[in-house]
This record gives sequence, C-alpha cells and structure tokens, in this order.
Amino acid sequence: MKKHNFSAGPCILPQSVFKEASQAILDFNNSGLSILEISHRSKDFVAVMDEAQELVLELLGLKNKGYKALFLQGGASMQFLMVAYNLLEKKAAYLNTGTWSSKAIKEAKLFGEVVEVASSKEKNFNYIPKNYTIPADADYFHCTSNNTIFGTQIKEFPATDLPIVCDMSSDIFSREIDFSKFDLIYAGAQKNMGPAGTTLVVVKEEVLGKVSREIPSMMNYAVHISKESMFNTPAVYAVYVSMLTLRWIKSKGGIQAMEQKNNRKAELIYGEIDRNPLFTGFAAKEDRSVMNATFNLKDESHQEKFDMMWKEAGVNGLNGHRSVGGYRASMYNALSLESVQVVVDFMQELERKV
Amino acid sequence: MKKHNFSAGPCILPQSVFKEASQAILDFNNSGLSILEISHRSKDFVAVMDEAQELVLELLGLKNKGYKALFLQGGASMQFLMVAYNLLEKKAAYLNTGTWSSKAIKEAKLFGEVVEVASSKEKNFNYIPKNYTIPADADYFHCTSNNTIFGTQIKEFPATDLPIVCDMSSDIFSREIDFSKFDLIYAGAQKNMGPAGTTLVVVKEEVLGKVSREIPSMMNYAVHISKESMFNTPAVYAVYVSMLTLRWIKSKGGIQAMEQKNNRKAELIYGEIDRNPLFTGFAAKEDRSVMNATFNLKDESHQEKFDMMWKEAGVNGLNGHRSVGGYRASMYNALSLESVQVVVDFMQELERKV
Repeated sequence: MKKHNFSAGPCILPQSVFKEASQAILDFNNSGLSILEISHRSKDFVAVMDEAQELVLELLGLKNKGYKALFLQGGASMQFLMVAYNLLEKKAAYLNTGTWSSKAIKEAKLFGEVVEVASSKEKNFNYIPKNYTIPADADYFHCTSNNTIFGTQIKEFPATDLPIVCDMSSDIFSREIDFSKFDLIYAGAQKNMGPAGTTLVVVKEEVLGKVSREIPSMMNYAVHISKESMFNTPAVYAVYVSMLTLRWIKSKGGIQAMEQKNNRKAELIYGEIDRNPLFTGFAAKEDRSVMNATFNLKDESHQEKFDMMWKEAGVNGLNGHRSVGGYRASMYNALSLESVQVVVDFMQELERKV
Repeated sequence: MKKHNFSAGPCILPQSVFKEASQAILDFNNSGLSILEISHRSKDFVAVMDEAQELVLELLGLKNKGYKALFLQGGASMQFLMVAYNLLEKKAAYLNTGTWSSKAIKEAKLFGEVVEVASSKEKNFNYIPKNYTIPADADYFHCTSNNTIFGTQIKEFPATDLPIVCDMSSDIFSREIDFSKFDLIYAGAQKNMGPAGTTLVVVKEEVLGKVSREIPSMMNYAVHISKESMFNTPAVYAVYVSMLTLRWIKSKGGIQAMEQKNNRKAELIYGEIDRNPLFTGFAAKEDRSVMNATFNLKDESHQEKFDMMWKEAGVNGLNGHRSVGGYRASMYNALSLESVQVVVDFMQELERKV
C-alpha cells in the first residue's frame, strides 16, 4: 500500500533519493565499497561534501556573497548553544514564537543578557508577534522562521541593522526569501534537506570573531570553516543523502518550484479546514505555516472515527503534537499534492458520515 | 573484485549489516516507509534505540552496575569538551599518547587545570608511557586506549582511586577488558561499532552532578540520560546501523570471539613485519595495537612497487597517516584474516622481487 507520510520530522524525502541512497550502502560510486566504510578523507567523499556545500549556497542564492555552508552535528539544539558561544558578547534579542525559540533563549542566557523582544506564549504560540522593538545595542537578533509544533511561520522578517540569526530547520528550501538578509542560518537536516544526523549552518564570515571569550574547537564556527566541515569526522551518510536531496531540489527547478508546489498543498488543506464545519485551524490565519498545518476537530467525539479512516488508508504521522492536540499535516517538499488530497477526502468523508 | 578494506575509520563493517542497512532505506520493518523518513519518536525507532543501548551494556558486561549508554552526536571531539564540562571542577590528569589525547587536553584546559601525567611525544608517540604518577587530588584521570594514528594501545590501565575516563573510539568491542574499572567511556562509532555520525558514551551515573558550573543542555550528560538519548532528534540511521553491528558482534560470540579473531590477525601481520627484512614496525613491540599495525619500508625506493601491488589487488586504505608515513593496516572486527593474508602475501612477494 502506498504510504502518505505527513511525519513532522524526520520526514518524507524523495523516493529517487531513497533508491540511490540504498544502492550506495551496497556499492558507492562503483568503488566496490559501501559509503558507510569509506574514509571521510577519500576523494569520493570530499567531492560529496564539496557538492553539498556548493548546492546549498547556489540554491539559497548566496554564492560569492561572503557566506560559508557547514555540515555539522548535534541538530538545531546544538546551534542554540553555538550561536551564543560565537556571537553573544553582552546582549542578544530573541523573538519567542514557540518551543524551539524558548529553548534557544534558555541556552543563550548562559552566555549573556537575553532580551525577549516579544512572545506569543500567552496564546499557546498560535500567532507570530509583530511590531516589536529590537534593542539597537544587541549583538544580534534571533528568530525561528517556522514553528513545526504550532504551525506558524514568519511571513515578513523585521527590518533591523543588527545581524539576523534564524533557525530555519523546518522551512529552509521550501520558499523564496532574500537569504542575504540573514547573517547566520541554521537548520537540522531532517525536514526538507535530508535525514536526521547533520545540521546545516550558513554563516556570513564577517559576523564571526567579535566575541572576547575563548571558544572550544567544536563550538567554533571559524574552526569548522577553516577545515571545510571536516575538523573531525562528519556524519558521512547524512551529508551524502542531503547532497542527493539538494540535487533533487535543483533538478526540480530549485526553491521557486518547491514554493509553488508547497503553496498548492497548503491552499488545498487550509481551504478544507476553513470550509469543513467539523474542523478548526489552530494558528492565526495570517501566520499559517505552509509546511505544517495544525487543526483540531471541533467535536472530539469524532476523533476515533477520523483516525481509523486515515490510518487504514496508509496515512502516517497526522497526529498533532501533544502541546496542540488534534492534527498536524506536515507537507514538506517531497510530499505530493495527491497525498494532501487523500487527507482532504477523508475530512470530507467524515463530514458526510457524522 | 573483492575489496580488502583496511581503512582507519570510517571502516569496514560486516557485509550482512550493509545488506540489512540498505534494505531498511527502502522499507524499514515492512512499514512501507524508509528508515530515513520515520519519526525518531515512532515505536519502531524507539525500539532500535533501546536495543542499541541494551546491547552496549550487555556486551561490555555493565548491565545493572549503575551505567547508562548514550548515543550522542559530534564524535569523540565533542566528548573532549563534554567530559570537561561535566567532570572538571578544578584539576584533571591526562595521559598524552598521541593526536587525540593532545586534542582532549587542549579542550579540557578551557575548563580547569590539566596535569599531563606523562607523554610519549618526544618519540613521535611510538610507545605508551608507564610508571607515571597521577595526582591524588585530580577530579579524574583521562586516557586514550588505542592510538589509531601511531598504532599503540594501552595493555594495562593504571591503578588509581580517581574516576577513569577513557576514549575507546578505536578499540571498543575489540578486546576483553574489565570495563567496570572505568567511570566514563566514549567512542566515535565509526570503527568497530557502526558508521560515522553517532558517538557512544557509557557513563557511571554516580560520577555526574559534582561540578558547580551550569552546563548547557546539549553538553549535559544528565540531560541526555533523563531523555534516553532523545533530548533532541538523534542520528537515527547511524544508531540503527550501530544496533545492527552490535547484534552481529553478539551473534558471533561477543567481545571474546572478536578478541580471538583480532589477535590472530595481529599475530599474522606483526609476524611478517618482524620477519621480513624490507619492513620495520613503527610502534614499540610491547605497546603494539591489535587494531592498527603501523609499519614502514626500510628503503623507501620500494614504495612505488609495493603500492602498485596491493592497490591493483583491491586492497584499500593501507597508506599510513601523514604523521607516521609508511603503512597502516587497520584490522577492525569485521576485517577477515584472509584480507590480512593478502597483504602479508604482497609483503613476501615484494621481498622476492627486490
């Protein structure tokens, strides 16, 4: 049975990527060796790392603009710490839009003063705060572009002269943005870029080297840049599968093409959420995420019936996060419009049946 | 052509592991989903993580002895930092036996006083120092059990009342040791345990919680223990392949069986190094590593001829590290005696030809 994978992350990746990634476990590049047993210093793997870094900058439109792309380990959670280690001298400004922003703030506080410029916590993070003031003397401004758990997404980033740091874990490569407005972007791979186990950092080199503390080697972006993401053994396979996924994005028309497809999927499901009298959307309409649509049944007594329908039809990962309840349709790049249609059909079938 | 993979790491793993690991990319546990696209919170993956942690403690003989096994990210290099963050209050004692020990010392110095109890640096780390004194007032003693680059291995660990921390990246699961003598063991997976991208930490819980500093969440062993290695998204696939490799070790008879096979391989190659008048071993005999045999040609003019022989025969990764030159035969658990025999045959053929 065909599966429709709405998992919030790790999540669906293209089938063609799985096929090539499976073959490379048996024989990589006709070398007679598995990609799992080759040296990360081998010519073949260095080429993978180079291509992955190159594709990132190309797809984001950041080539020859002073940026470096790094593939590190530890997920976005490690970046909460590394960002502060490298950039926070005295004070930093953070926008709090959910669980991940809150965690980023907590870690940054170990390194200096953190000003929370705004928060939507009082409404269980169901909207993106706007019209807040960013202190001009902060070292940087930090935000989370998409909130996987609550299904909100920043549509317009604030104008500020400060360096902007953005956690784009759950929507990078999904929509066109002027990425050159950002000084540091980070993203756990396991949404639109690849499998769990590697983390992308895109950093404008000029923002580094400005803090006075001594930074441990593994925490130091400058060290990783100087070694081209090979200061120590990288997550070879996760970088390889990310490279395959980036190639796939490029072959399909780049971020522009992804955005068009993602918008169609989002329109389809939000249209049904708004039309269907049984359901209600969780996030404020103007802040709805194109990646993660969060919605609830108005009457929870229908839950058992609805869950049985979609589970029997091979739909995976539609359950909402415990902080929100209800449902969450995570519609990353590789998810087809057809899969979204399957869920919409069940929402309509439920309406007919109850 | 069959390959004989002597790569120092990432390195050879069992062929049966590659086969199962390749299949799981296409369809994991007959779920219709790739292991790369499932949630790390899914029942199927939680079972993988649990089994991997359980197998580690079982194979090391550490079940029900107050230890926890963790699968983290960042490699041994991240552990250089985490060990100091969690255990170094005032002073720590380090034995310097090579590149990795030196790096561990460098990172620890950011957190307190580091006493280098002994070093073999003056002889390019070709031996393991002995009869050194460990200061009784140190917070812990740190050593590296096997030195991949130089081909030395600690045969007898020092007697001390301090907690012992050991980097076992390149020989864990290869030989029987009383692992309960150690309070914290860490190891990058990419030698005997799995692919690059995950790092094993085995820690006796009672040594934690004794430093006064605030530890960032991702650096804090106690946080990772409380979340059973799932504080954030783990390196799903690297943990899975490690679990398969641990299962393989167990099915073959555990560490005892690995050690017997490893000793036969080491005897074979070191016997030839000592017998063959063209070659000389790099490491002091009593400290020779069973994992990594380092050796050089007495007359480097034979190098081209020897290299051509083994490269044409499908031998991979026999070149020595630049710090030592010559050759390095890394003979991890999955390498067959037959592969070692192939190299020994070429060493003998070279002797006949020159």
